[in-house]
Amino acid sequence: MPPVDEVPPECVVLETQTISIDPYVRARIEDRPSYKPPIGIGDVIPGEAVAIVRASNDPTISVGALVTAHTGWATHATCPASSVTPVPESVTQPSLMLGSLGMPGLTAFAGLAEFGRMQPGDTLVVAAATGAVGSMVGQLANRAGLRTVGIVGGPEKCRAAIEHFGFDAAVDHRRTDFPDALQAATPNGIDISFETVGGRVFETVLPLLNRHARVLICGLVSQWGAEFPGASAQALIRASLDRSLHLHGFVVGDLAAAYRPHFYEDVPPLFSSGAFQAIEHRTLGLSHAPTAFLEMLAGAHLGKTLVQLD
Amino acid sequence: MPPVDEVPPECVVLETQTISIDPYVRARIEDRPSYKPPIGIGDVIPGEAVAIVRASNDPTISVGALVTAHTGWATHATCPASSVTPVPESVTQPSLMLGSLGMPGLTAFAGLAEFGRMQPGDTLVVAAATGAVGSMVGQLANRAGLRTVGIVGGPEKCRAAIEHFGFDAAVDHRRTDFPDALQAATPNGIDISFETVGGRVFETVLPLLNRHARVLICGLVSQWGAEFPGASAQALIRASLDRSLHLHGFVVGDLAAAYRPHFYEDVPPLFSSGAFQAIEHRTLGLSHAPTAFLEMLAGAHLGKTLVQLD
Repeated sequence: MPPVDEVPPECVVLETQTISIDPYVRARIEDRPSYKPPIGIGDVIPGEAVAIVRASNDPTISVGALVTAHTGWATHATCPASSVTPVPESVTQPSLMLGSLGMPGLTAFAGLAEFGRMQPGDTLVVAAATGAVGSMVGQLANRAGLRTVGIVGGPEKCRAAIEHFGFDAAVDHRRTDFPDALQAATPNGIDISFETVGGRVFETVLPLLNRHARVLICGLVSQWGAEFPGASAQALIRASLDRSLHLHGFVVGDLAAAYRPHFYEDVPPLFSSGAFQAIEHRTLGLSHAPTAFLEMLAGAHLGKTLVQLD
Repeated sequence: MPPVDEVPPECVVLETQTISIDPYVRARIEDRPSYKPPIGIGDVIPGEAVAIVRASNDPTISVGALVTAHTGWATHATCPASSVTPVPESVTQPSLMLGSLGMPGLTAFAGLAEFGRMQPGDTLVVAAATGAVGSMVGQLANRAGLRTVGIVGGPEKCRAAIEHFGFDAAVDHRRTDFPDALQAATPNGIDISFETVGGRVFETVLPLLNRHARVLICGLVSQWGAEFPGASAQALIRASLDRSLHLHGFVVGDLAAAYRPHFYEDVPPLFSSGAFQAIEHRTLGLSHAPTAFLEMLAGAHLGKTLVQLD
């Protein structure tokens, strides 16, 4: 760790404690443009972390402060002080700042608020329903009076979706009768599909969408790197016409400024009171981050994937 | 024509003068559900017409009145009086009630107002740009300060798009270099695509859409009855995520009540003053309606397709 006089002006040196492992990294390690440029060979894999300030060359951030910052997958990082965020004192579990109270939670909150047009009685489906985004989507929609149906992989996640996150129903996409099971779980059709996965799951959701349904597209894990010979773009366009669908792609960065204050006012008390829950999956040691990432993409983890440093 | 005492109560008997030939019929003659059920064998093909009231069994509609009604492709029709609309006296050219001042014009007006989020300087593209919907989309967007690019078939329609409807540029989709030509005509990318055609044209528009672009889907002539092996639904979903696209399918019926009063207040004076223009293609004789319909689908007509009764 460099002494303070080697820290660049207005920067801090951070020691990471807990690193968030995120699905969007899958898109950014492909050699094609996405909403951001691809990660270069030799670059640090991006990721947000909870970290302790070990040195500071900025009067606004003290040594010893607990912050979140985009350190990437690294034990230490030097960051501009302006780019780190102190963990609010009201947040009693700092790692939630990487999941339910961080970017994933804000994605759920802002996406639903901006594009969801939630009405009590509507039916919402979300895949990866026990993940950081999906579990917040379900709990927020449930709170708004919607019927919530979670799509997950395996019976353990089905149980967790219902018991921990209050989904009205959970459907295992690994079942051979998944399309029938999803239809049975959505007897009034689907009004909102919060798309975090895409691929075969989306193609199963598509025929069940009601007129005026809203499809919120915030991330599509399953299709990254894969070919999908299924429905054509024209079939989707045709469905959009036939049923007056609304498809909204969005990245949380575009909505964060508008929704962050309301989010941090509204949601942390729901966790403090126990009304909302979060599940975390921790892997110990930075060297295991690539394995944790691949396991997450394969759906092997229950809850938000984190790497805990030794 | 039946005497008045054979006209059902609260109904009128109409003699059609001019019948609108509409692309949506193509979707409804397929044996699959669309936003409305398919037309049955032996049913009258649907269509709106300008008609004269020849008999009336309702005090609110007088014999001799000029009205519009959904008579279908027929010389006469008996309709509930509540379903016919008198041609407003301010409308000096009644056939415009079937095109620019009717359902197609309202589709353009309401779709842009509800979903377009038009900003001066934005670039809008619309296909079938010399048709009833496309020409109104272009003129309304032009009036709102947008750069307007029409996509049409053939040099004659290119000229008409620019000279009659004020498009800033027109691109012939029959050119072998159509993708390059469209890119050259949209140097700042595309912010709004008003989709009336779909198919290959849409697949050419898709890569040119800017971040936060809006795709308004009101009808897709080219794909009806055809297979499109092009881009997958997943590719479109991926593009929606990468560029925060907004796709809105809509049918004018859902928006008509909200926008009709403003439309009839705003738009007819623009035609009276000569600021807006319309082009009509008339085929003489009801027996030629099927030919006129097929020619319209093939893009052989310039302007709104009408059948004029003998």
